[in-house]
Amino acid sequence: MAKPIHILNGPNLNLLGTREPDIYGAATLEDIRTLCTEAASDLGCQIDFRQTNTEGELVTWIQDAAETASGIVLNAAAYTHTSVAVLDALKTCTVPVVEVHLSNVYKREPFRHNSYVSPAATGVICGFGPHGYVLALEAIAKLIAGKQE
Amino acid sequence: MAKPIHILNGPNLNLLGTREPDIYGAATLEDIRTLCTEAASDLGCQIDFRQTNTEGELVTWIQDAAETASGIVLNAAAYTHTSVAVLDALKTCTVPVVEVHLSNVYKREPFRHNSYVSPAATGVICGFGPHGYVLALEAIAKLIAGKQE
Amino acid sequence: MAKPIHILNGPNLNLLGTREPDIYGAATLEDIRTLCTEAASDLGCQIDFRQTNTEGELVTWIQDAAETASGIVLNAAAYTHTSVAVLDALKTCTVPVVEVHLSNVYKREPFRHNSYVSPAATGVICGFGPHGYVLALEAIAKLIAGKQE
Amino acid sequence: MAKPIHILNGPNLNLLGTREPDIYGAATLEDIRTLCTEAASDLGCQIDFRQTNTEGELVTWIQDAAETASGIVLNAAAYTHTSVAVLDALKTCTVPVVEVHLSNVYKREPFRHNSYVSPAATGVICGFGPHGYVLALEAIAKLIAGKQE
Amino acid sequence: MAKPIHILNGPNLNLLGTREPDIYGAATLEDIRTLCTEAASDLGCQIDFRQTNTEGELVTWIQDAAETASGIVLNAAAYTHTSVAVLDALKTCTVPVVEVHLSNVYKREPFRHNSYVSPAATGVICGFGPHGYVLALEAIAKLIAGKQE
Amino acid sequence: MAKPIHILNGPNLNLLGTREPDIYGAATLEDIRTLCTEAASDLGCQIDFRQTNTEGELVTWIQDAAETASGIVLNAAAYTHTSVAVLDALKTCTVPVVEVHLSNVYKREPFRHNSYVSPAATGVICGFGPHGYVLALEAIAKLIAGKQE
Amino acid sequence: MAKPIHILNGPNLNLLGTREPDIYGAATLEDIRTLCTEAASDLGCQIDFRQTNTEGELVTWIQDAAETASGIVLNAAAYTHTSVAVLDALKTCTVPVVEVHLSNVYKREPFRHNSYVSPAATGVICGFGPHGYVLALEAIAKLIAGKQE
Amino acid sequence: MAKPIHILNGPNLNLLGTREPDIYGAATLEDIRTLCTEAASDLGCQIDFRQTNTEGELVTWIQDAAETASGIVLNAAAYTHTSVAVLDALKTCTVPVVEVHLSNVYKREPFRHNSYVSPAATGVICGFGPHGYVLALEAIAKLIAGKQE
Amino acid sequence: MAKPIHILNGPNLNLLGTREPDIYGAATLEDIRTLCTEAASDLGCQIDFRQTNTEGELVTWIQDAAETASGIVLNAAAYTHTSVAVLDALKTCTVPVVEVHLSNVYKREPFRHNSYVSPAATGVICGFGPHGYVLALEAIAKLIAGKQE
Amino acid sequence: MAKPIHILNGPNLNLLGTREPDIYGAATLEDIRTLCTEAASDLGCQIDFRQTNTEGELVTWIQDAAETASGIVLNAAAYTHTSVAVLDALKTCTVPVVEVHLSNVYKREPFRHNSYVSPAATGVICGFGPHGYVLALEAIAKLIAGKQE
Amino acid sequence: MAKPIHILNGPNLNLLGTREPDIYGAATLEDIRTLCTEAASDLGCQIDFRQTNTEGELVTWIQDAAETASGIVLNAAAYTHTSVAVLDALKTCTVPVVEVHLSNVYKREPFRHNSYVSPAATGVICGFGPHGYVLALEAIAKLIAGKQE
Amino acid sequence: MAKPIHILNGPNLNLLGTREPDIYGAATLEDIRTLCTEAASDLGCQIDFRQTNTEGELVTWIQDAAETASGIVLNAAAYTHTSVAVLDALKTCTVPVVEVHLSNVYKREPFRHNSYVSPAATGVICGFGPHGYVLALEAIAKLIAGKQE
Repeated sequence: MAKPIHILNGPNLNLLGTREPDIYGAATLEDIRTLCTEAASDLGCQIDFRQTNTEGELVTWIQDAAETASGIVLNAAAYTHTSVAVLDALKTCTVPVVEVHLSNVYKREPFRHNSYVSPAATGVICGFGPHGYVLALEAIAKLIAGKQE
Repeated sequence: MAKPIHILNGPNLNLLGTREPDIYGAATLEDIRTLCTEAASDLGCQIDFRQTNTEGELVTWIQDAAETASGIVLNAAAYTHTSVAVLDALKTCTVPVVEVHLSNVYKREPFRHNSYVSPAATGVICGFGPHGYVLALEAIAKLIAGKQE
Repeated sequence: MAKPIHILNGPNLNLLGTREPDIYGAATLEDIRTLCTEAASDLGCQIDFRQTNTEGELVTWIQDAAETASGIVLNAAAYTHTSVAVLDALKTCTVPVVEVHLSNVYKREPFRHNSYVSPAATGVICGFGPHGYVLALEAIAKLIAGKQE
Repeated sequence: MAKPIHILNGPNLNLLGTREPDIYGAATLEDIRTLCTEAASDLGCQIDFRQTNTEGELVTWIQDAAETASGIVLNAAAYTHTSVAVLDALKTCTVPVVEVHLSNVYKREPFRHNSYVSPAATGVICGFGPHGYVLALEAIAKLIAGKQE
Repeated sequence: MAKPIHILNGPNLNLLGTREPDIYGAATLEDIRTLCTEAASDLGCQIDFRQTNTEGELVTWIQDAAETASGIVLNAAAYTHTSVAVLDALKTCTVPVVEVHLSNVYKREPFRHNSYVSPAATGVICGFGPHGYVLALEAIAKLIAGKQE
Repeated sequence: MAKPIHILNGPNLNLLGTREPDIYGAATLEDIRTLCTEAASDLGCQIDFRQTNTEGELVTWIQDAAETASGIVLNAAAYTHTSVAVLDALKTCTVPVVEVHLSNVYKREPFRHNSYVSPAATGVICGFGPHGYVLALEAIAKLIAGKQE
Repeated sequence: MAKPIHILNGPNLNLLGTREPDIYGAATLEDIRTLCTEAASDLGCQIDFRQTNTEGELVTWIQDAAETASGIVLNAAAYTHTSVAVLDALKTCTVPVVEVHLSNVYKREPFRHNSYVSPAATGVICGFGPHGYVLALEAIAKLIAGKQE
Repeated sequence: MAKPIHILNGPNLNLLGTREPDIYGAATLEDIRTLCTEAASDLGCQIDFRQTNTEGELVTWIQDAAETASGIVLNAAAYTHTSVAVLDALKTCTVPVVEVHLSNVYKREPFRHNSYVSPAATGVICGFGPHGYVLALEAIAKLIAGKQE
Repeated sequence: MAKPIHILNGPNLNLLGTREPDIYGAATLEDIRTLCTEAASDLGCQIDFRQTNTEGELVTWIQDAAETASGIVLNAAAYTHTSVAVLDALKTCTVPVVEVHLSNVYKREPFRHNSYVSPAATGVICGFGPHGYVLALEAIAKLIAGKQE
Repeated sequence: MAKPIHILNGPNLNLLGTREPDIYGAATLEDIRTLCTEAASDLGCQIDFRQTNTEGELVTWIQDAAETASGIVLNAAAYTHTSVAVLDALKTCTVPVVEVHLSNVYKREPFRHNSYVSPAATGVICGFGPHGYVLALEAIAKLIAGKQE
Repeated sequence: MAKPIHILNGPNLNLLGTREPDIYGAATLEDIRTLCTEAASDLGCQIDFRQTNTEGELVTWIQDAAETASGIVLNAAAYTHTSVAVLDALKTCTVPVVEVHLSNVYKREPFRHNSYVSPAATGVICGFGPHGYVLALEAIAKLIAGKQE
Repeated sequence: MAKPIHILNGPNLNLLGTREPDIYGAATLEDIRTLCTEAASDLGCQIDFRQTNTEGELVTWIQDAAETASGIVLNAAAYTHTSVAVLDALKTCTVPVVEVHLSNVYKREPFRHNSYVSPAATGVICGFGPHGYVLALEAIAKLIAGKQE
């Protein structure tokens, strides 16, 4: 049986729906989980969906995913911009990694324009709100399919 | 009848397939056009697919699209990093704009990390090769559908 | 009954009294808790006083405080200068937030002059040692009173 | 008899109440003087409250205060960010100096993030509007009392 | 009986042997522990060898070591470059601290050239692979012996 | 017969009236042409009024104007900030050149504060909307008259 | 009766005619006053023309003008580049402010390219020598007329 | 028959002889074409000599040359310093590319010290006036001969 | 009779002897005046010795000195580092100007390394305490003598 | 017979023992030579120990060592931070190179944080005083042994 | 009899052929000397060909060449990027100076992009390997001939 | 008998009188030696006057002077701006060191504004041509006398 795709969410994403809704929208993280489950079902794959506020836990999850996942959708939120540890963990991964952001980070503060995740990701998707997760799942599925050919 | 989605390609993209294939892949621009036509057909929409090496022509096309398109998929290539004129043209658009790059620009030279397009785009998709255009079309279709609800 | 004011302390503050006493003084964190309890009593309010070395835990506490506190006194210590996650958590708060530092950080190394907390705080108090916490509590009390008028 | 606390105000603060009220509030400088007089009375001390638009006059007042005041509350306004002369004058002071700002300067233009005053001040209080002056007086009183013990 | 030397390892070092072996070599962290145990035995001292992915836990361990260790060998990995909290914890230590890196960090990305650990360390050893830990233990032993003379 | 004054407009100015009207106002480029024709008539001179989106065409027009115009009013729009080619073309001109901007560019994004045109212009007029063109024509007329005296 | 337009001149402008005539020309400040008086007469308005070497006096005059003038023509000279106090004073003005410079500052030293005045001005005119003051008066008159319509 | 060497000239070079003759000399572009024709004749090769003011046209010519030329002599003039599109076009070329400048650009403004052309060129020749084109042709001839051995 | 040498002192120099004596020494400004009077007497010249805290007054004095002095010894103190107005005033002087500092400013904070005075001065003398004024007078006398030969 | 290890010392190291003993300690360079001879004896290898103040001589010695040494211990002192020539010489070496510094350079001036030596060295050891040379010899011996296995 | 052309080579060039042959090629410095002798013979001139590792000796040779040479071909190697002394020596030369580099330095590390030699050179030739010396000799011969006409 | 004052001159100063006379004047180094000998005679002291083009020799001379001189007058010329080795040598000196420059270096290129010599010098004198050496000798004499009191 195929390995699941891990969808890893970083700090403060547990507050979605209440946190700055003009930037992040009204959907909760639970809504996004549901959306992803449906999309994964359409694509014929499993997901493992998690959230943490702690950098070290996120690092550990990425390490785990390198072993147990077929791909990673990563919204590292604030750690995107400050965590070399996340970068180092990603470098150990050989499965596809897609970086996702709900908002268009390039319209925001300059310190959000730097990403430690991007150089270690296969690709980046940002600015499409919750739908960005669906696009990321499709991209991963496509990448996995491409490898298997 | 619905307006088409304009897919606008910047300088040197006419060389795809022969230009630095280790970065850009073996697909030609014609292959990408075919891929987009198929995807658009699946999504029930029309496309208008163009390429130019001239900044001024790209500016004019974006101005036109603001009138005649339902959305824009823009791969401004090198002008992404140097053209304030492209940015100013995009600011006049009220339709959704999705910025696409074939390669993950964040893995490349520092001057490719700055984008004048991003702050005026709805979202960004990069690093997925030709498939990124398909994801962009899906994202546009979703955004248009969202507006119409 | 009124909600308490949360007083949240970041990394290494558990060592106060022994850590670099020429910079931070001889008072322990327990001494500061006592001082705050007394000041709160004078102001007729409750406090919830905590310390953690972990960024993620501090983020979680700030999220909690947004729900359960009437105001936050935050000494994020080293995370002041490196944590976008703390900033993002603070942005979800609608209650008053006062940033406190024991020492005058502007007399110290340049990397301590940048604060990710300040742009999301109501105000800043630094350089007064433990008494700064008392001033912060008074400021919060004043701000809460101002809102209730 | 104890020396008074000098409260020195820099350029444009004479316009308070009319100048950018969304940033600085509706209170006039005269209102703040009244607030300070009452607070000083509660603390059992005298104040000397002044305002000037001229950098050189502010320098001279600081020099005077070093002789005749028991402490200084300084809102140097625009000179905070540009005046090395104010810094040099403050360095001659051995009495406590508290830097005050009505607004949270860290939420404003980058050139307001640099302060020539802070490295020579005992502490900094900003973002609490007129009430910040009261907190500053309390801090000074506490510092003087601390010295006398 | 003499206190042990604490050997503290930061994020992703648990992956040694599998993570980027062209940079970090084939030895696992367990191999390094064995190497250190043997070297310590030759030097007549004890070691306490740990690894964590979490910044806050590393901070707490350094605080503990300040009490219970005779010296610290610290490979803070990614936190070397981002953690002011680690720096602050190290500043409370009076025992010798030796910073170790397996690879020569100065040959890698620019953001790895900055170290928050170095200013608080007694010395730095990098680029010798696992053998660097042995050199660090020898250096600590020498430093302790120097103090006891 | 006297040579005309060339009024050269850069990219996106053809959209005036519809493009970001809160910044650029409601007047169209045709309105500005009318305004300039009237002002030129009052000043007793001819104008040649053009617009292009292409950098190279703007360069060629400036080269032409050096031969056939008595002065140049230049609103290079986005090329103001990015075009060394425009600068080089202007350096070949011995007739007066007045740089015009509709908006006050110093209130906008930092990359609009740099101008390659200014060092090669006689003078700069910005922030007065369409009326700035009239002021520029008067300035040119004055400069030409000054030469002829 | 209509309020006058205040024409405020900063440091060293009293030396015009003798100071670096290759940059500033042969006209004295008195010549410019005469020129302005004539131009104002043509426009049917009054002027109040002043010069000072002192930053604080310039700040005070701007504050006064906010009350008693219908518009301000400001040549802040050296204070243009160093005075946040002048900027703060200008921000209190609701009447039109036109920044004027005799020389084209963009052809000179880099520190003259930054202006604290521009972000608070309606518009900027530079490089036309004394005639720039006449253009500024016309611009103000136009702006006042525009408001009254 | 051997392919010709393409000699491509960028913006404003059509003005040579009249444009800033103290920097660029008295020779016209036609003079340089004659010089190159003679030198090519001596070297036994053909040339194709062109000039354009438009970035996009220069990009297209470089793309063409990659197919139809045996080598490229490129004086990109102002686009040397601003055009990533020219760089990208050059990267598709496998024939030798020699960058030429008439003046020594390192003696001029700082923005002329950066070249997007150099990293993609085989070599650089600058500062020798029109004779630099002859040296470039000799260098190309040498490089082609070297390949054929 | 020969014109006197003006010795102009900037802000806070009136405090010499009490201000940071470890940096500036124990001599008062009055002591320096006496020292200068004696040295001038030996050199057979007159002096005019002044001090001010106000930038504008220093500017006016420099303007005056351009008319009435045979040379200027200028210790602009803090205004050295912030005043473009002082620089502009000095540029109008044709008499020799010697910049003096009591301390070696290059050993102090970075913002004291920039001098707006130096580019307009004949020479600079710093680090010799009060004796630097005597050296400056000798240098001026030498320069005046050199002109008269 | 095995080749010796060259121990090359740069400028001012001949002054050890007298030069800034609080930074560099009381040991002379002769003491270090003795220490190295003993350590080499324990390791069963020969050393060649030299010092020079001249950059060019150091370059020549490194070139020689590439031929005649089995490894290099290099304390380039000040040339560490300024000499590209030393870097280029090191790049020609295939034997192990260990960079040594007596003091922890990262606690000192910023210009000492940059090292041209590090990118060409096998490893770096700093902060252990003379004992660092012994550690370096051990490291070299280990590296040589590793190669021979 | 005509003066010779001096061909001066800086540090590490004596290693050519063995040093990083993928960058510098297989030719030795002796091969280049032979190449230059032949080319000089064709041009009817003499050469004086030298190499040194010492900055001071290179400076002295340039000083000598100013007297005894008719032109200088200078490959300052590493000193190109660090030596103000070489720049100052070149400024005393009135004979033509051509800067040569074997490799295209603009494709290498950023610190090799800065040249202290270029601003004092007549022209620059880089990237053509040993043949670049021949082009440089031809350029010098052309420049000398141009002077004699 | 008193130790002499060493007057040490760096690279290219042997060319004085011929090198850029508009900057450095017509006096030769021999003229300056004569001037210094006379001034020393007036002051009742001996001098030792030297010049070298080699950084290492200058370093050695400074080391010698620390032993055998009563003070050092140092014109390190180009090495002022690039030599950390000179700085380190100066730090070993306990005798007074006066940095001299013939020209006002602050009026020249930015890279001449940085001095590695200044932080280790007692004082700096620049801009007075050869007379600056006399002023330096007087300053040294004064400093020595001050020590002996």
